[in-house]
Amino acid sequence: MTVQTPPPPTAADIRAAAERLRGQIVETPLIESQALNERFGARILLKPETLQRSGSFKFRGAYNKISALSEAEKKRGVVAFSSGNHAQGVAQSAALFGIDALIAMPTDAPAIKMANVKKAGARVITFDRVREDRMTVVRPYIEEGRVLVPPFDDPAIIAGQGTIGLELVAQAQKLGASLDTVIVPCGGGGLIGGISLAVKDASPETQVWAVEPENFDDTRRSLAAGERKPNAPGHVSICDALLVNEPGAITFAINRRTLSGAVTVSDEAAAQAMRDAATLLKLVVEPGGAVALAAIITGAVDVRGKTVAVVLSGGNVDLDLYARLMAA
Amino acid sequence: MTVQTPPPPTAADIRAAAERLRGQIVETPLIESQALNERFGARILLKPETLQRSGSFKFRGAYNKISALSEAEKKRGVVAFSSGNHAQGVAQSAALFGIDALIAMPTDAPAIKMANVKKAGARVITFDRVREDRMTVVRPYIEEGRVLVPPFDDPAIIAGQGTIGLELVAQAQKLGASLDTVIVPCGGGGLIGGISLAVKDASPETQVWAVEPENFDDTRRSLAAGERKPNAPGHVSICDALLVNEPGAITFAINRRTLSGAVTVSDEAAAQAMRDAATLLKLVVEPGGAVALAAIITGAVDVRGKTVAVVLSGGNVDLDLYARLMAA
Repeated sequence: MTVQTPPPPTAADIRAAAERLRGQIVETPLIESQALNERFGARILLKPETLQRSGSFKFRGAYNKISALSEAEKKRGVVAFSSGNHAQGVAQSAALFGIDALIAMPTDAPAIKMANVKKAGARVITFDRVREDRMTVVRPYIEEGRVLVPPFDDPAIIAGQGTIGLELVAQAQKLGASLDTVIVPCGGGGLIGGISLAVKDASPETQVWAVEPENFDDTRRSLAAGERKPNAPGHVSICDALLVNEPGAITFAINRRTLSGAVTVSDEAAAQAMRDAATLLKLVVEPGGAVALAAIITGAVDVRGKTVAVVLSGGNVDLDLYARLMAA
Repeated sequence: MTVQTPPPPTAADIRAAAERLRGQIVETPLIESQALNERFGARILLKPETLQRSGSFKFRGAYNKISALSEAEKKRGVVAFSSGNHAQGVAQSAALFGIDALIAMPTDAPAIKMANVKKAGARVITFDRVREDRMTVVRPYIEEGRVLVPPFDDPAIIAGQGTIGLELVAQAQKLGASLDTVIVPCGGGGLIGGISLAVKDASPETQVWAVEPENFDDTRRSLAAGERKPNAPGHVSICDALLVNEPGAITFAINRRTLSGAVTVSDEAAAQAMRDAATLLKLVVEPGGAVALAAIITGAVDVRGKTVAVVLSGGNVDLDLYARLMAA
């Protein structure tokens, strides 16, 4: 089947998503740490989507997508593939609408994420992240009639994640802060795509930067090349939430217009950011959720003298890995 | 010197403190976890003062106390004794007013707390928690002219902590929740004293429960006896923030009127609550800050079918202890 790439969502779509999500999501706070500010000579405002329903921002997009399904589609159920955060967002949203959900997860997905998906009442099937193509795994279920809820390359998903950008702008304003820079973890680019649309609409001069794990810098290389570039196979990272093959068609169409650039951080830098989040912010952040903070710590994004918003995108990390990284 | 016990603060004093604190403190969010609700068959609303300036609720009381000092008193500087959270609150508040602060801390205070006090610009002297009397340690500095900022037994301190109660009531109302029970960690009783005054003023039928570490159940035994009872010496606990000799005169005068009761939890229960806070709430909570949640987990306070607010009072825990407790 050939599918035309749908147009990206607009700022109006994001505002409509915010209306739909009102009362269903946590309006996550904007947190400031004097210690971080002093250390980096900047005003750093943190948006902990770790405190969002399902433990990551993914609930926003999934709920927005599912809420827009027709009654006939809802009856047929949904299917999704995800290493865990999107899976939890879909499972919890589907449960709220009483919709049957089937989620394909890689066998090496964090145990906490798989357990939470099952707890929300979804059925889980597993696949090999390296050897199996995820679309091939879910195709039979789509042909059966289920609606695919994609992890990022979908206008309704992007619009849902974009509601974070609306909150960021409004909350910063309340604090009397004018945002110079917004720094966002980047996997497939749905989160930063939505956020950058909302932020640029309200404040065109604010810079938006993507942060990716080392060896998974598909967005950085795609921005440089002017077209979508895949990641080389065979690499691993503790940032399970950010491991994609390449940017989405829709997300890249947005991000090539909106982003000031993309930088990478190592696993060790992500782990250090997790430790700093624990000691300075008292927040549990998962590896992939901590990369934007890591980019400040390593200096990959220069923040000196600026007012900066940093998205902490998720907190779903297995306790044994978390304990190991805290002890390191 | 003989000192008359001053009268407890009133609800009006707490409202005045809230005015003074406006813009200086974080209005900590009220967080709800579907997973916790389902596990306990209750609606559980968590108030993470872990996200407060200085990493615990103590900033509220210290700031309220120091802001009310005369110009002459401010010039003479302040002195305080504390295992760490009050010390950080005093140090950071004093720094905001440009006041010299000297803090006496026990030699076994958590390293993170001592480091943060020094970073805020306060001078630290240490004393032996078991062999030295803390009042004897600070008396020379009081005689020198410094104003003592007591950790809990002071009307301005209690009123400052009570602002949490005002926020709790207003935030619960916004969520459409009517609080049956409020559960609060209890050391000297200043936090729960202030909170219970504010909560009972707005909602007299709401029950307020204190939670203490095992062997440090001075408030529980004092409530039973109808008079202040000290703890037996020689015990230890990981809940460093809650280790006092006995309830304060002012705090006990409040708490004997306002509390429905007090319960105790073990160190292991506090550690389990810290792990649950990490996995379910994505919050770093210190041992003493987790005892109210621990009381729900152990069933020490029965919450089934109720709407309950739980105060997570602080998050200042050394990373190596934290990693050990997460791994357990």
